[in-house]
Amino acid sequence: MFGAVLYGKDDVRYEEREDPRIIDPADAIVRTVATCVCGSDLWRYRGINPTDRPSPFGHEYVGIVEEVGRETTTVSPGQFVVGGFLYSCGTCATCRVGQQANCENGGGYDGCQAEYIRIPYADGTLVAVEETSTDDDLIADLLSLSDVMCTGWHAAVSAGVTEGCSVAVVGDGAVGLSGVLAAKIRGAETIIAMSKYPERQALAREFGATHIIAERGDAGIAAVRELTNGIGADAVLECVGTQTSVDQALQSARPGGRVGWVGLPHIDGINQSHMFWRNVGLAGGVAPVRAYLPELLPMVLSRAIRPGKVFDLRLPLSDVADAYAAMDERRAIKVLLTP
Amino acid sequence: MFGAVLYGKDDVRYEEREDPRIIDPADAIVRTVATCVCGSDLWRYRGINPTDRPSPFGHEYVGIVEEVGRETTTVSPGQFVVGGFLYSCGTCATCRVGQQANCENGGGYDGCQAEYIRIPYADGTLVAVEETSTDDDLIADLLSLSDVMCTGWHAAVSAGVTEGCSVAVVGDGAVGLSGVLAAKIRGAETIIAMSKYPERQALAREFGATHIIAERGDAGIAAVRELTNGIGADAVLECVGTQTSVDQALQSARPGGRVGWVGLPHIDGINQSHMFWRNVGLAGGVAPVRAYLPELLPMVLSRAIRPGKVFDLRLPLSDVADAYAAMDERRAIKVLLTP
Repeated sequence: MFGAVLYGKDDVRYEEREDPRIIDPADAIVRTVATCVCGSDLWRYRGINPTDRPSPFGHEYVGIVEEVGRETTTVSPGQFVVGGFLYSCGTCATCRVGQQANCENGGGYDGCQAEYIRIPYADGTLVAVEETSTDDDLIADLLSLSDVMCTGWHAAVSAGVTEGCSVAVVGDGAVGLSGVLAAKIRGAETIIAMSKYPERQALAREFGATHIIAERGDAGIAAVRELTNGIGADAVLECVGTQTSVDQALQSARPGGRVGWVGLPHIDGINQSHMFWRNVGLAGGVAPVRAYLPELLPMVLSRAIRPGKVFDLRLPLSDVADAYAAMDERRAIKVLLTP
Repeated sequence: MFGAVLYGKDDVRYEEREDPRIIDPADAIVRTVATCVCGSDLWRYRGINPTDRPSPFGHEYVGIVEEVGRETTTVSPGQFVVGGFLYSCGTCATCRVGQQANCENGGGYDGCQAEYIRIPYADGTLVAVEETSTDDDLIADLLSLSDVMCTGWHAAVSAGVTEGCSVAVVGDGAVGLSGVLAAKIRGAETIIAMSKYPERQALAREFGATHIIAERGDAGIAAVRELTNGIGADAVLECVGTQTSVDQALQSARPGGRVGWVGLPHIDGINQSHMFWRNVGLAGGVAPVRAYLPELLPMVLSRAIRPGKVFDLRLPLSDVADAYAAMDERRAIKVLLTP
């Protein structure tokens, strides 16, 4: 089969790789229907997190089960499946409390931007989608559940977004925009999207943003406070991971408010004075996608939400190098790839 | 009148001070019935936070209203009152969301270990206690509401303690012990008190601790995990404020769990890898006592809870220097002082 391999900075290649096969009886092999490029992978693509050897790339997918190991019982060949960007056993104490991203037996895949993918612990990782699942118009929405929609949702859950509250979203990538949608679904009244790009502002509005703030840093914080009785938002979703964005998020929350952080942190430190002395909390991390699928999947299948709108460019998987370049240069919010 | 003044390291004096008087029409003057020494004041008493000039000391009190300014309407002379360790206006946007500790017009008192205290914004700060209020046996319980009980409660609220959850409490001072009681009131099922002192362990048990762990650091973390399915507690209350205790608290929480921190932080930094990569949240800060009084006061008045048990030494206010020494040397958990 063919798949994407990262060789180093700005160097992604589509090349022949070994076909995956069942190694463990709990495995499944999935034939990829769609995969995509993640903003979090740009840290490695840009060489900020260096790559020391050629590495199969990608961690988001939807597809059709091709083959299962003898211990796999919840999915079977021919079924359309969605899975999270990390695999999880589903049975350890951590999975049992709904924290599959920290599964004691979990881990990452060997590159999902490929024609076939081996999924360890298929029962604890995959969710089979019945009925309309493979309708072409739903593929993008389903694929978004594999990471960005669930990650935006995790930001909102971690920040304690509830009915009627005010939310500021730092970051206008696919995760930030999904965070806007998550805040809307959870009933937030004021939803402030921080974005300076017109096409992203437009999608933020479509997803439920009530206000757009183009300013960043101190000016951005002041603008958020102006919209929130002068004190800051009840909840802030941090969807970038830089020092500037984390600082901005903490200072945009009101006393007693909470920041949900999901941007992979590339920071020197957390300024404790932005937290303790302002009574601002910080929670979140890597999203337990598998825990959220049962709640979000029906919304997608009923078309109540269309999170797949974050995909504004579609390319054949063989053009994966172009897909990374488009994301890197901000020509695309998120690129969907089909084998 | 006489009151306590901190001159420097290990140097607290009981000396004559000017009588407080109404300065602002929103003020009240309170005649102290009881006051006490706070663990947080030991940072300055021990010289860790240096004192640059003689400073009136103390921030906890219950007393009788002596006089009120012409704008004060909710309390009147002769009433027994409880107030928080910070004053708050009660009307700003921050107070209105229940975050009085961060009141935009709030601040600290000019020394509560004194015979009389001036309370700014009396309406936004004090709660009048009717009926049995001045029963001698309730004084200690009511006084605990001025800080430690509400601070322990804030730790539990910030850590998200709810019915049936597991809680670990780091710190066995008056706040930590109050945190144990708060966890019990909120319905926690497993309550782990981390303490190596027999008399504190005994009070922790009385307040609701189901388990005691004497170990600290890595051994303490391992012991907490052993009691919580190997993964850590749902909620951890950090009631000390040192680097060791904050690190220990973060590592004692399970993935998806939360630490409520209320110990005044004297730390170099927050280890982000204990947070993001383990999906552990951190929330809390200075407790909004005034927000919690309406809920906790009835429990005290009905004697459903006896948080005043943290006071294990009573001295006349004139012996305030001995009170600090006793706390500093751990001869007392908390010292109650009466003028």
